Amino acid sequence: MSNKDIITLLHGAGGSYMHSLIKNVFMKLNDNYGEVGLEMLDDAAVINDTVISTDSFIVRPIFFKGGDIGRLSVSGTVNDIAMMGGNPIALSLAIVMEEGFPLSDLEKIVDSIKKTAEEADVHIVTGDTKVMEKGSLDKIIINTSGIGNRPPQLDYNINTLRKNRQPSRWLVPTNLRPGDKIIVSGTIGDHEISILSSREGIGFEANVKSDVAPLNKLMLKLLEVGGIADAKDPTRGGLADLLNDWSEKSGLGIYIKEEDIPVREEVRAAVEFLGMDILELSNEGKVVLAVSPEYEKDVLEELHSDPLGKYATTIGEVRKDISGVIMETVIGGQRYVGRPIGSPVPRIC
Amino acid sequence: MSNKDIITLLHGAGGSYMHSLIKNVFMKLNDNYGEVGLEMLDDAAVINDTVISTDSFIVRPIFFKGGDIGRLSVSGTVNDIAMMGGNPIALSLAIVMEEGFPLSDLEKIVDSIKKTAEEADVHIVTGDTKVMEKGSLDKIIINTSGIGNRPPQLDYNINTLRKNRQPSRWLVPTNLRPGDKIIVSGTIGDHEISILSSREGIGFEANVKSDVAPLNKLMLKLLEVGGIADAKDPTRGGLADLLNDWSEKSGLGIYIKEEDIPVREEVRAAVEFLGMDILELSNEGKVVLAVSPEYEKDVLEELHSDPLGKYATTIGEVRKDISGVIMETVIGGQRYVGRPIGSPVPRIC
Repeated sequence: MSNKDIITLLHGAGGSYMHSLIKNVFMKLNDNYGEVGLEMLDDAAVINDTVISTDSFIVRPIFFKGGDIGRLSVSGTVNDIAMMGGNPIALSLAIVMEEGFPLSDLEKIVDSIKKTAEEADVHIVTGDTKVMEKGSLDKIIINTSGIGNRPPQLDYNINTLRKNRQPSRWLVPTNLRPGDKIIVSGTIGDHEISILSSREGIGFEANVKSDVAPLNKLMLKLLEVGGIADAKDPTRGGLADLLNDWSEKSGLGIYIKEEDIPVREEVRAAVEFLGMDILELSNEGKVVLAVSPEYEKDVLEELHSDPLGKYATTIGEVRKDISGVIMETVIGGQRYVGRPIGSPVPRIC
Repeated sequence: MSNKDIITLLHGAGGSYMHSLIKNVFMKLNDNYGEVGLEMLDDAAVINDTVISTDSFIVRPIFFKGGDIGRLSVSGTVNDIAMMGGNPIALSLAIVMEEGFPLSDLEKIVDSIKKTAEEADVHIVTGDTKVMEKGSLDKIIINTSGIGNRPPQLDYNINTLRKNRQPSRWLVPTNLRPGDKIIVSGTIGDHEISILSSREGIGFEANVKSDVAPLNKLMLKLLEVGGIADAKDPTRGGLADLLNDWSEKSGLGIYIKEEDIPVREEVRAAVEFLGMDILELSNEGKVVLAVSPEYEKDVLEELHSDPLGKYATTIGEVRKDISGVIMETVIGGQRYVGRPIGSPVPRIC
């Protein structure tokens, strides 16, 4: 078998390889069902005003600085629903463990799931447990799937967009218009660098905690401010994948300034040491917003009043005079930001 | 660590070990949310008339006689929703693969998913793909989660139960009443024996196909007949686990006759050869029904008119003068049917 005929780590890494796999193999499942269906390649779907999303979590190590696989499993699916504008209400929890997995670790994970679900105000309503023979699975995999409903705050927000565009009823990339401001809710790269520094044998340590957190309550407050065209969390593939996605799906260009991207000093140092691109790092507690310019100030103000949005800042805008994603570098030049072929680190989520 | 402190294969095998794990570890997640929540320990939950269910599939081999992991993944979740009385409409699909997994196998699985989803008339609306390093996962795990709505046929069916009981609005064990007939929709054990005979190195071969199939359309037809108090599919833990579940949750006894349980000759021979208990074998295309006696004949007639219910038969009844599950054996004796400690075969689903 040639390399073309097998699944590689890149096929699960949130970049161009994964997008090709989805388009070439999974798109045959698409039957254009629902208001936002599989064809949108978004992180959630909408069926009769119910938002539905799923994610499997394979992160390693299972306990890391700032979080664990349990907190990640709840936050990941809650955030996917919230990014669509939905209000997550219930999650399913399916756990697959390796024979010999310590019961005490399972209990710690379940405690973390409980705590995070309470924080997000979502309910775990059904579940499934499977066990695989020793040696056939590395420790544990968790899947959460979730449903959300349509909050009144979303209706209000969509109404604020009506004067200058015909928006979808949901937060989707086709809502973007030239002039929209690109806002990130805080520092970039914390999750991926935390995971890396929690791994044994990497030979570097950084005092960085993962940002993993449920963002649904913050999102409801932002929708109440209004002017939000789309929201997305920069997980696998990071900012680079997210912005390319927006550019492709909206048919518009995106211009960002490197110096405006908030990055912790420890993360910047780690990135330089490891030779990675900050734009490709994954995050689990950040949202990127495309905001109508007249709402920029109010959205930033609301973000700054919340611990999860304390370091929010505008990093760029949507433009029609350019195509793709262009970044103005700190030294004043410009460079195209391509879609990453995939996250450089396996099993970050 | 002692054996008590680690997860064993039995913890995922659908019997008493798994029930203890759920009660001791996962029940702390329960917050009594929803009409049918986690506390019911059912295969699906109900939130605002939306049925939600999840299952991860780890079956080995991934292609077996009569089916494959793709067909199983769709049928399993569709059936869990249908057993609650729900009408499944949309599924999510989350796949975790091992690095090196053949793309051609993935394509075969996705084709099978597509075909089975069409057969069940459900839509795959969202998904997730992850890849683990070679050696850290045996081939592939699939999670499907699904939502269903409340079909008018369920309202009709519940109304047929109103004269002699105060039923739940859904198909749940507390609907059972003394005198209800226990009906199985066909031959028992086909799935588990097919899986075993598809495995290398077991040293026996049986010409038995798995019964794996979506049962939702059959269930809607049965609800239209009426008189159905509860329905459940005898998957992991088989008939023994299912009937004990019904007995425990309804507080009633169940009496069945061994000679009335439909079993294929090849399955009976395999069970004797392998020293297994037919009551503990898992099925993936069968439903067990508790039916109000005045509807027994019509339900059986409807079942016999459908290829999936061709060999349906009454195997017993609900009684208040006994407790637990008792089986009249072929030689005329009686024996208690206990809850199995778990399926004897790992990774049957």
